[in-house]
Amino acid sequence: MGNTFGNLFRITTFGESHGGGVGAIVDGCPPQLDISTEEIQFELDRRRPGQSKITTPRKETDTCEIISGVFEGKTLGTPIAILVRNKDTRPQDYDEMAQTYRPSHADATYDAKYGFRNWQGGGRSSARETIGRVAGGAIAKKILRQVAGVEIIGYVKRIQDLEGVVDPETVTLEQVESNIVRCPDAEFARSAIERIEHIRRQGDSVGGVVECVARNLPRGLGEPVFDKLEADLAKGVMSLPASKGFEIGSGFAGTLLTGSEHNDEFYLDASRQIRTRTNRSGGIQGGIANGENIIIRVAFKPTATIRKEQNTVTRDRQETVLAAKGRHDPCVLPRAVPMVEAMVALVLCDHLLRHRAQCNTLKPVEPIN
Amino acid sequence: MGNTFGNLFRITTFGESHGGGVGAIVDGCPPQLDISTEEIQFELDRRRPGQSKITTPRKETDTCEIISGVFEGKTLGTPIAILVRNKDTRPQDYDEMAQTYRPSHADATYDAKYGFRNWQGGGRSSARETIGRVAGGAIAKKILRQVAGVEIIGYVKRIQDLEGVVDPETVTLEQVESNIVRCPDAEFARSAIERIEHIRRQGDSVGGVVECVARNLPRGLGEPVFDKLEADLAKGVMSLPASKGFEIGSGFAGTLLTGSEHNDEFYLDASRQIRTRTNRSGGIQGGIANGENIIIRVAFKPTATIRKEQNTVTRDRQETVLAAKGRHDPCVLPRAVPMVEAMVALVLCDHLLRHRAQCNTLKPVEPIN
Amino acid sequence: MGNTFGNLFRITTFGESHGGGVGAIVDGCPPQLDISTEEIQFELDRRRPGQSKITTPRKETDTCEIISGVFEGKTLGTPIAILVRNKDTRPQDYDEMAQTYRPSHADATYDAKYGFRNWQGGGRSSARETIGRVAGGAIAKKILRQVAGVEIIGYVKRIQDLEGVVDPETVTLEQVESNIVRCPDAEFARSAIERIEHIRRQGDSVGGVVECVARNLPRGLGEPVFDKLEADLAKGVMSLPASKGFEIGSGFAGTLLTGSEHNDEFYLDASRQIRTRTNRSGGIQGGIANGENIIIRVAFKPTATIRKEQNTVTRDRQETVLAAKGRHDPCVLPRAVPMVEAMVALVLCDHLLRHRAQCNTLKPVEPIN
Amino acid sequence: MGNTFGNLFRITTFGESHGGGVGAIVDGCPPQLDISTEEIQFELDRRRPGQSKITTPRKETDTCEIISGVFEGKTLGTPIAILVRNKDTRPQDYDEMAQTYRPSHADATYDAKYGFRNWQGGGRSSARETIGRVAGGAIAKKILRQVAGVEIIGYVKRIQDLEGVVDPETVTLEQVESNIVRCPDAEFARSAIERIEHIRRQGDSVGGVVECVARNLPRGLGEPVFDKLEADLAKGVMSLPASKGFEIGSGFAGTLLTGSEHNDEFYLDASRQIRTRTNRSGGIQGGIANGENIIIRVAFKPTATIRKEQNTVTRDRQETVLAAKGRHDPCVLPRAVPMVEAMVALVLCDHLLRHRAQCNTLKPVEPIN
Repeated sequence: MGNTFGNLFRITTFGESHGGGVGAIVDGCPPQLDISTEEIQFELDRRRPGQSKITTPRKETDTCEIISGVFEGKTLGTPIAILVRNKDTRPQDYDEMAQTYRPSHADATYDAKYGFRNWQGGGRSSARETIGRVAGGAIAKKILRQVAGVEIIGYVKRIQDLEGVVDPETVTLEQVESNIVRCPDAEFARSAIERIEHIRRQGDSVGGVVECVARNLPRGLGEPVFDKLEADLAKGVMSLPASKGFEIGSGFAGTLLTGSEHNDEFYLDASRQIRTRTNRSGGIQGGIANGENIIIRVAFKPTATIRKEQNTVTRDRQETVLAAKGRHDPCVLPRAVPMVEAMVALVLCDHLLRHRAQCNTLKPVEPIN
Repeated sequence: MGNTFGNLFRITTFGESHGGGVGAIVDGCPPQLDISTEEIQFELDRRRPGQSKITTPRKETDTCEIISGVFEGKTLGTPIAILVRNKDTRPQDYDEMAQTYRPSHADATYDAKYGFRNWQGGGRSSARETIGRVAGGAIAKKILRQVAGVEIIGYVKRIQDLEGVVDPETVTLEQVESNIVRCPDAEFARSAIERIEHIRRQGDSVGGVVECVARNLPRGLGEPVFDKLEADLAKGVMSLPASKGFEIGSGFAGTLLTGSEHNDEFYLDASRQIRTRTNRSGGIQGGIANGENIIIRVAFKPTATIRKEQNTVTRDRQETVLAAKGRHDPCVLPRAVPMVEAMVALVLCDHLLRHRAQCNTLKPVEPIN
Repeated sequence: MGNTFGNLFRITTFGESHGGGVGAIVDGCPPQLDISTEEIQFELDRRRPGQSKITTPRKETDTCEIISGVFEGKTLGTPIAILVRNKDTRPQDYDEMAQTYRPSHADATYDAKYGFRNWQGGGRSSARETIGRVAGGAIAKKILRQVAGVEIIGYVKRIQDLEGVVDPETVTLEQVESNIVRCPDAEFARSAIERIEHIRRQGDSVGGVVECVARNLPRGLGEPVFDKLEADLAKGVMSLPASKGFEIGSGFAGTLLTGSEHNDEFYLDASRQIRTRTNRSGGIQGGIANGENIIIRVAFKPTATIRKEQNTVTRDRQETVLAAKGRHDPCVLPRAVPMVEAMVALVLCDHLLRHRAQCNTLKPVEPIN
Repeated sequence: MGNTFGNLFRITTFGESHGGGVGAIVDGCPPQLDISTEEIQFELDRRRPGQSKITTPRKETDTCEIISGVFEGKTLGTPIAILVRNKDTRPQDYDEMAQTYRPSHADATYDAKYGFRNWQGGGRSSARETIGRVAGGAIAKKILRQVAGVEIIGYVKRIQDLEGVVDPETVTLEQVESNIVRCPDAEFARSAIERIEHIRRQGDSVGGVVECVARNLPRGLGEPVFDKLEADLAKGVMSLPASKGFEIGSGFAGTLLTGSEHNDEFYLDASRQIRTRTNRSGGIQGGIANGENIIIRVAFKPTATIRKEQNTVTRDRQETVLAAKGRHDPCVLPRAVPMVEAMVALVLCDHLLRHRAQCNTLKPVEPIN
């Protein structure tokens, strides 16, 4: 029962890497939203393998089909089922993994939990499951943009020790998409590509940090005390494959400051709106959005599956050595950008609906048509 | 509807800082568990204010009463209601805050969300709401210990730039409780106390990092793809007041390594159990516990409420200057330790029940008595 | 985890008949709602024992205390905790029941499920647990009345074979409260009182049917396909103690008609609103409110606990004979009326919030203050 | 968000009558369960249109595909996605319904709720959505049978005023499937077929009652106070299209008895098990299964869509007359049997997992492999 995310705007995903396909059911979507297969495909294309020389060469077009919930180009308010068939599967590449556990991969723990697993290409633990998230996130983004002009933009902030310079206040999707690393800092992008290609040639992998900003979010979203906005954002991105850490606003570095240095002073802007001069809070105070930009960072570890030889064990408890075959990303970061954006969009859209349900209710009900 | 946490082992908390009291309902607790008021009080005492010279001087005994769900010292399987009355309230200390928003506190966002708030002492956004969590966590700890010998031990790892040396493999509760900072490293504790007292005299505050280890956790807990164990742990601790960041295992530092450096190689131990030589995974692979120690870290910002003057605004949109009155912690870290432990216990206990429900079911049902 | 009801407007109840008390946490209540202890107490007084000669003589004032969530007479949007202490407990009356199972009562099944129970007065299976429902329902009613003028009125429709004549279109609370049976039909009420007193003297009990109408409900509430409005109403009332059946609109009798006889023809009323000429649908079509009156009926069995001797068994598996002591209702119907109303109110209020969340969302967000 | 059913064993359904297809995601299924497409198809065939002369002539084979969650014939513990494509769609049959509201159908309320609908064949409100339920129910049945030998058998009990004689203690699936009415009473079946054919020729429809028994259910299932077993059963079946009433055990008729007549006396059977001599409780006391047979009845109204002329209105608020085209069931009862069984199976399987999670937990954790 861990495959549903969200309370009101809710996705349920399904699918293994090498089964019949993957996808998602989106339930709770407001009716009468214009949505097209193309809008969903746009985000899936940002996520798909084989998109550049620094991603896995697995050739999947990840073409999506909307099975239900949309009629004449508009959402019906009923569940939206989205299906992506698996195409370029090579189960034979994984024969060895039926027996041999990849270090720091989910092979061993899936066996420990379920006593059994689809060993072809990672099964359910493959990053391929994120297709359902990205598809659902595309719809969430559309709602957020249409209702409140919310923009959600992710980018690669770090690859190992290389760090890009990006201004979250102004960064655009076009800038992010201008190179295959997905970071607007061109110089950083060049170094990062070099690093990734170098590491790939070594049969190894690298990790890094994705930063994501949400702009124009209405004040008030977030549901204390457990469903604080940062708590649900943390859960959302920490459920992505390979994530190891989460920060909101000042994050771990904020612990080095004193309160008087860290606090975001309030002031009144030209239109007498309450604003903060700094944004160490990352747009959230007390678990509730304060109208400033939401800024988070997510750490992704280096890909576990590598060609380099590693000591490991088999399912039947023999020690052995593994040099993984199959087609893998030397660095997940560029493809993780749309995944992080999707999870942020899903959380914010769910909280938009939740906030409205509780806090906009004591008014007369208006007919919908 | 954000005041319930957990799926099967589930707490619902209530209460404001200056209302009639705070507490929790624990639903889903297994029946026939021995539990006493004293066991819950023990954890509440670790959390309560006024416990040492480096915490707030507010005098609250935080005495808990079990209203329901326990009979003749054993749980009934029905909801366990726990109530702690508020005693040492001084609403007059907060008169100014009815109007003036504390920077980086929840005053302004509660007003933005609900249009209204209990301004006395922070209301629902006060850390006092964590009493319900700690009470529920005490019961969760008992279950985990009894069923599987799980030990959950938190400690202060950093205060600003001061860092303690602690071995998560061996650290004990007694060591943690041996000083008022809640860190077994005595030298670090001395420096930290000095730092906190210094900063308090300045009317300022500091933050830091709590580390928490869970030992002896059975393999298999965790529910991919959204309710991965690290995702629920992240949500749990990021819902605590003042938290700004979360790490599991290698965390952000792990992004500096290559895959071959980062991966935890498998081996067979003396009893032919599958183990990992290192634990950069922090005890979780693919969202599922692998039987190694769970290790997390949580960043807490410096307390927002400080005596130092700060620029801010009022509810009716006037710019002003605030020097907060009231009784506040110069550093939340020592009191945050039992809070982090409680959230970890709640997550692990819920996942213990969830795992058993799905994965231990295809066996004949045994009568309970 | 079966003690929470509702998705957005959500109550969690607690308490045993003879423990420290009973009550509820109401989470998700819209902020800034005027609510007083008196309004809640009014409904509790309709439910409490000892209110008339045809109810149990147990003397409980059922005085409620609001512990949290209300400030200066208004809801805060935070959880509302309501506590009612148990006063007139007589555990000694139940000594025999520690061992002897009452036929058709929950004694045996609680032991079968939990291996253990609070045998004093029924414990959690006592109708006393409905105090939390009625308290939560009082708040739900207030919201429904304030937002949309919704009126929810229940009444006793049948006692055994005696049936009252009531017009659901026009019946008022005052009429219902005009006699101790809670049925506006005075003649029926007289016969029913006579019947109940007669049956009580025999040490026996009777059952009957409660009917409940909800008027002025906005069209559109209800969430197909599983959370259809009638499905959630059915669940709500079938979770009440002693309920054995549920009908919406034409109910079981409707199965005797043909489609052309049963269908509710549409027409346009004077204000060109779409209405139905008949209401065999009971106000719901396809799981969604159509704007006509919601009409349901609930069957309640005769009280299980009776003074008459019955064959039964003991916990340690001996056959025996039981003539129950303790103070019991000879007929639960009059006290069931506020319980049914409460469950209907909880369901409708939750669905009001749910409908607004999904279907009123594609509009600009308005600030709450 | 009303398209998910269950807590631990949980289905999410999708699909409109005339979109790309319908289906379900089953989440929380125990791993290592043998399950085949054939087993699911068997139940779908009992539900599909065109199966006999007394059902709709729409020609759908309703062939199902398992997209995920099953590997080498066994469940993986991951979400099981099941898809059935729509084939024999004739949107042109429904042209008129784009504008004209069928009396007592969901056309008008879907428009009132969502402002928009897929008018082809009922869209989401078509009984076609129950395919997902029946598919999920097939898996639930398999688990219940395998773990505890539970048998769930439904049958038609009444068509209008015609009533069949069936013994719930002994009725078998083979007997039920022996005629097209799905009632083992052959004489009743003959009369019922005659009645249905007669009514169909008149362009009209009839309703009736389905009874369903669950045998061999382990004691203890059910989660007071809101998720009592009968409450969840009521919700499950009252969410089926056309259902108008629900009874457990003695139901409405039980209200005519006194307590001494109604109570089920306990006794010890030959193996010293606690049993009841009668079963007016319908297998549930206090919301918890007592080990006797679960017996429920569900009222289904006559099909709303009929060929006979009826007064109605259009979407743009004109009064008109409708004689419905399209292919419709003159009586849903025979096809409702597998739907009722499916909902009962889903509820019982979910409660089996829930009961085990809470009440079988205080034992050492056993490894799964």
